[in-house]
Amino acid sequence: MERSLIEWLCRRLPQHGDVAVGPGDDAAVLSWPTGADCVVTVDVLMDQVDFDLANIDPRRAGRKALAVNLSDLAAMAAKPTAAVIGLVLPQHGGEQLAHALYEGLLPLADRYGVSIAGGDVNSWDGRLVISVTALGQARAGKVWKRSGARPGDWMLVTGEFGGSILGHHLDFEPRLQEAHILSQQFDVRAAIDVSDGLSLDAARIALASGCGFVLDAEHIPIAEAAYELARRESDPDAALTHALEDGEDFELVLAVPPAEGERMLAEQPLEVRLTKIGEFTADRSFWLRQPSGERVALIPRGFEHQLDDG
Amino acid sequence: MERSLIEWLCRRLPQHGDVAVGPGDDAAVLSWPTGADCVVTVDVLMDQVDFDLANIDPRRAGRKALAVNLSDLAAMAAKPTAAVIGLVLPQHGGEQLAHALYEGLLPLADRYGVSIAGGDVNSWDGRLVISVTALGQARAGKVWKRSGARPGDWMLVTGEFGGSILGHHLDFEPRLQEAHILSQQFDVRAAIDVSDGLSLDAARIALASGCGFVLDAEHIPIAEAAYELARRESDPDAALTHALEDGEDFELVLAVPPAEGERMLAEQPLEVRLTKIGEFTADRSFWLRQPSGERVALIPRGFEHQLDDG
Repeated sequence: MERSLIEWLCRRLPQHGDVAVGPGDDAAVLSWPTGADCVVTVDVLMDQVDFDLANIDPRRAGRKALAVNLSDLAAMAAKPTAAVIGLVLPQHGGEQLAHALYEGLLPLADRYGVSIAGGDVNSWDGRLVISVTALGQARAGKVWKRSGARPGDWMLVTGEFGGSILGHHLDFEPRLQEAHILSQQFDVRAAIDVSDGLSLDAARIALASGCGFVLDAEHIPIAEAAYELARRESDPDAALTHALEDGEDFELVLAVPPAEGERMLAEQPLEVRLTKIGEFTADRSFWLRQPSGERVALIPRGFEHQLDDG
Repeated sequence: MERSLIEWLCRRLPQHGDVAVGPGDDAAVLSWPTGADCVVTVDVLMDQVDFDLANIDPRRAGRKALAVNLSDLAAMAAKPTAAVIGLVLPQHGGEQLAHALYEGLLPLADRYGVSIAGGDVNSWDGRLVISVTALGQARAGKVWKRSGARPGDWMLVTGEFGGSILGHHLDFEPRLQEAHILSQQFDVRAAIDVSDGLSLDAARIALASGCGFVLDAEHIPIAEAAYELARRESDPDAALTHALEDGEDFELVLAVPPAEGERMLAEQPLEVRLTKIGEFTADRSFWLRQPSGERVALIPRGFEHQLDDG
């Protein structure tokens, strides 16, 4: 029954000091500090699309649903404060599933001080849908956007890319801590989190900024999981393709002035490695530079939802 | 394709002055005024549960998805400012459907000055799911809650109840204007919007406030649609039951001190009628008072999502 689930939730949900009215009213109320913008993002995840409940612990699905939103806040250099969660549960086993989803996401919420301020619980004869809206704060005018890159800026990334389907897409750490450190200490001109694929998301920064880019093939940090996929496909070259085109790495791509990039690489201020993978260019096209120096055109590819319309 | 849809949306979505960063980045950014709390609510609507796309114009479904959230903000006496929208579209015909949903909700957003600040578009082989998160502002500490009713307070309602399934559940007007006027001019101690049924939602105020209530059967404003359903059922008594137990009237139930209630009824400050339907009591039980003066126990009933758990 919905009521027993909601009572269970109201006892369990973390409420931090900024929650003036929490779950149980028609809406949640958050106290808001003077001078902070409100940063808001929503992601909707579906069973058999974003995860497969037949094959994974549902706690990992719940964690992912919150984590992808926190990754979006990280990409804006916002401090997460609260989330509201809309659930569409399958009728059979829905309450147990809801418990597991929350058990998965609550430790992540707790880790980053995110209040679960409210939600909506529904059920139907379809598959699980989980919608998370995350709210964050940023000093007014101080968010990172996609559109700030300039020709000559370096493209830096956190972490490694490719093969997330082997597990990273569920268990990744949103780069909140990293974004916080970088935004405090360095001049970052543009940023995005890689949800749909490194080449595609890097192209989104370039398009929004009116730039192009050149990437250095030998400098793309390739995850072990990408090599593993390439081994399974018996195609050694596939590892780089996986790094460029697989989605859901949830690493940050950053545009920074060269001097700032040099300082970031020298200091390596994060627990995860920062790597320079290329430069933004005034020429609005996309290139991959081989170790030989030869350039080949790079077609940004990644995950896009397919709609079948006439 | 998702991209053409997103480009269409980015051209069409209303952006008011408070949107510092709109759709097209990883998150939206809203400027936030000093001294305003952030009021946030989410509702998820599903095809064949909250509406039936086989039988209605999808524009009405889109309008409803936003309207139910605005109704929640009205119940908190918050001023709506922005919404973010998560769509899960059926693969076939999804893009046309998305256009129609937005065509339905944009006039409502426009009417109340709501920026559509961002969203998430997905598709799958299942039915439409639409998740709307609405954000509003309220002066710090000045929201209405469910928990403020006191014994002796009058229970007032806006409008009429029952039979919403005949059309009102899609085409209702969220009581934002009414909540604004009442919150400015009167001392309202508690409020809720009727989404699951008058008796059930009134009981939610009572439970949250540690009260009970007595309703006057002859004073419940019964909608023409409730009488119409009663006629179809050949049961004249059913109209009152529909008024008490049908969901989705989206009218306001208010708890007000008696002197304030007298003033509200005398002034009738709204375009829609305010009616006194009963009083809150120290006794924590629920009663329906017949015209004869006889009291019968009232069992709060309405819509609750059913979950089938072992």
